[in-house]
Amino acid sequence: MAKTAAVSPLAPKTYPEMPPIEGVRFAAGSAGIRYSGRTDVVLAVMEEGTQVAGVLTQSKCPSAPVDWCRARLGGGRARALLVNSGNANAFTGQTGVASVEHAAKVAAAATGAPAAEIFQASTGVIGEPLDATKFDAVLGDLVARAEPGKIMDAARAIMTTDTFPKLATAVTAIGGVEITINGIAKGAGMIAPDMATMLSFVFTDAPIAAPVLQALLSQGVQNSFNAITVDSDTSTSDTLLLFATGAAARRGAPAVTRADDPRLEDFTRALNGVLLDLAQQVVRDGEGASKFIEITVEGAESAAAAKRVALSIANSPLVKTAVAGQDANWGRIVMAVGKAGEAADRDRLAVWFGGIRVAAFGLRDPAYDEAQVSAYMKGDKIDIRVHIGVGEAQATVWTCDLTKEYVAINGDYRS
Amino acid sequence: MAKTAAVSPLAPKTYPEMPPIEGVRFAAGSAGIRYSGRTDVVLAVMEEGTQVAGVLTQSKCPSAPVDWCRARLGGGRARALLVNSGNANAFTGQTGVASVEHAAKVAAAATGAPAAEIFQASTGVIGEPLDATKFDAVLGDLVARAEPGKIMDAARAIMTTDTFPKLATAVTAIGGVEITINGIAKGAGMIAPDMATMLSFVFTDAPIAAPVLQALLSQGVQNSFNAITVDSDTSTSDTLLLFATGAAARRGAPAVTRADDPRLEDFTRALNGVLLDLAQQVVRDGEGASKFIEITVEGAESAAAAKRVALSIANSPLVKTAVAGQDANWGRIVMAVGKAGEAADRDRLAVWFGGIRVAAFGLRDPAYDEAQVSAYMKGDKIDIRVHIGVGEAQATVWTCDLTKEYVAINGDYRS
Repeated sequence: MAKTAAVSPLAPKTYPEMPPIEGVRFAAGSAGIRYSGRTDVVLAVMEEGTQVAGVLTQSKCPSAPVDWCRARLGGGRARALLVNSGNANAFTGQTGVASVEHAAKVAAAATGAPAAEIFQASTGVIGEPLDATKFDAVLGDLVARAEPGKIMDAARAIMTTDTFPKLATAVTAIGGVEITINGIAKGAGMIAPDMATMLSFVFTDAPIAAPVLQALLSQGVQNSFNAITVDSDTSTSDTLLLFATGAAARRGAPAVTRADDPRLEDFTRALNGVLLDLAQQVVRDGEGASKFIEITVEGAESAAAAKRVALSIANSPLVKTAVAGQDANWGRIVMAVGKAGEAADRDRLAVWFGGIRVAAFGLRDPAYDEAQVSAYMKGDKIDIRVHIGVGEAQATVWTCDLTKEYVAINGDYRS
Repeated sequence: MAKTAAVSPLAPKTYPEMPPIEGVRFAAGSAGIRYSGRTDVVLAVMEEGTQVAGVLTQSKCPSAPVDWCRARLGGGRARALLVNSGNANAFTGQTGVASVEHAAKVAAAATGAPAAEIFQASTGVIGEPLDATKFDAVLGDLVARAEPGKIMDAARAIMTTDTFPKLATAVTAIGGVEITINGIAKGAGMIAPDMATMLSFVFTDAPIAAPVLQALLSQGVQNSFNAITVDSDTSTSDTLLLFATGAAARRGAPAVTRADDPRLEDFTRALNGVLLDLAQQVVRDGEGASKFIEITVEGAESAAAAKRVALSIANSPLVKTAVAGQDANWGRIVMAVGKAGEAADRDRLAVWFGGIRVAAFGLRDPAYDEAQVSAYMKGDKIDIRVHIGVGEAQATVWTCDLTKEYVAINGDYRS
């Protein structure tokens, strides 16, 4: 995929201030995997006892690092995270397996942690062997240089076609003790997570046991990373990992070992906020995007049905090109509702753009003011709401428009 | 949708000679539905006793003419087909219902046939009321002017964003008596038939009973119209109707009343050929298309699984943009196999472009010659073959590439 130089017009105007998390240190370096003149490898070193949860791609052709993580998540413990950009180590056969094994061995030696507690992720080109010996020379240096405050370096080093680093943070509390959550993500194309998108890593100092973390993450991903799409193409490498160092226990935070612990209420809300913020930033960096689109489907038979209809709208090239063309083309919305395969009452369907109802009761709303809608469609945040008239359930998803720049980024890179 | 002036580079070089079909007469006229300076209404008048079968969109938000046809296909008899372009009469509420009822009444009066034997289809803008009184003044004239040889006029009058009329023909035999099959189609965008695409009408003089026609059509559509996609967007209006006048009985053709009649073998093959030819012409007129892509998936657990994987590849924006960019990007093929949700053995996967194997046994084929593949990718017909390594079943689908012109056609029309 080609890199675009300019920053997405939908990028956040400022980066958040990221307070350091006790028990995690970051360093980024240049291993020369594919790019020159930039960082391409990240090491996060975590203190002993760090708990980990993860959600990985459901692709039937996952990358070697995804297989590695899936096999080790059951242990629930992590001491380091090694991530590279430039090469996804996907569809690399036995070379790929050997590559992740070598990387784990080298990282284990450099950090003094067991290889089974080294988590890994790779992003970039598919199908090229990843020469993991390129890590040999850099990992010792990364361990030596790692600092709690270097998370921005990590966010930058994992970028591929991203035009801006993606960070989110929240401060919450468990049992009255302050807890911090920091997350980073990368992703701009091949975004249609079935469970998590491309790469995202979230860190907290909360003392939460791995099975509880897993429950929170599996739930939290549904309305964040699992509710976004750029191009309907699910990656081979989608990886979302949540690490909890437990360092806040030293400041008196209670250890949480049950997912239904009421003291998790604030933490859960904060975690979900960080996940949603990161997921939306991925959409804001959607390849070629000029509009950020929020789609809410109401009146469905179930939340799952509402989400399927919403994603049908979000993935429709005709809806996405119409939004790019600043046209409130509700006919295409109706088409996308119709093809979703879920119950919908055509003659009770209603469609709003930015709160302006353009269609109701199965036909165009005679009252709507086309000039008002046209003005709305010129903005860079487009809200689409659809009531499908058969039930009470609803869902919201996020996507971006489909522009010529998307085609250029993904088609012109070799010609 | 905007009309493009130029003819698709993938259009057939010549139109077929269409022998007239006994018992069907065509006329096209201008009702001023939306366009000026071109024909926009077609009437096909068929002799008494004509049998009909049909396959209609599975959209949950079908157009009023689709509802009309669905309710009348059970009767199995047709006397006329009325089609307009410029307005799809979709998502038009009770006005739409009144509109099809009015059109049937006027067409019945003009042809002397029962309203229940008038079949209808509309294509064009969604959500605009269709003023069916515009048919009043033209239908009498169309009946008077209708001729067996005017099928090209019909094919032209139903075009919307199409850049060329789509016709196919075959001569076959039943019981030693010559039988002709003629078909027309329109469609260029909003093409991802779940059962049939946009509009296609096929006529034959064979004396075949409606239930048998229906069985042949339902089967034939699976590997033709149901095996193509332009943009994954299923229309509200997809309609495929097959009319059999039975006029060949006067020349001695035996009446066929059972789907398993062995005398149908040649006819079935000819019919399937006409359906596939028309379906492929729709892809060749895919909005903005510069490449015609044939995708075959082998080694699947079932034919249905093979087709789902093939359509996952065919609908992937990243695969389609890569082909547009003349890049044999098999990594994106692997991604699309992986996201399809069907069993596939990543480490036995093989990918060919135009017979050149580029990947095998889960990684890049070390033997392949990149210059040879690059030269192949410059052609306008791209064959992609994928073996997914878990079974014996296979399927083939057809699509086109995704270009900036697709975005322009569907996004620039108002700006």
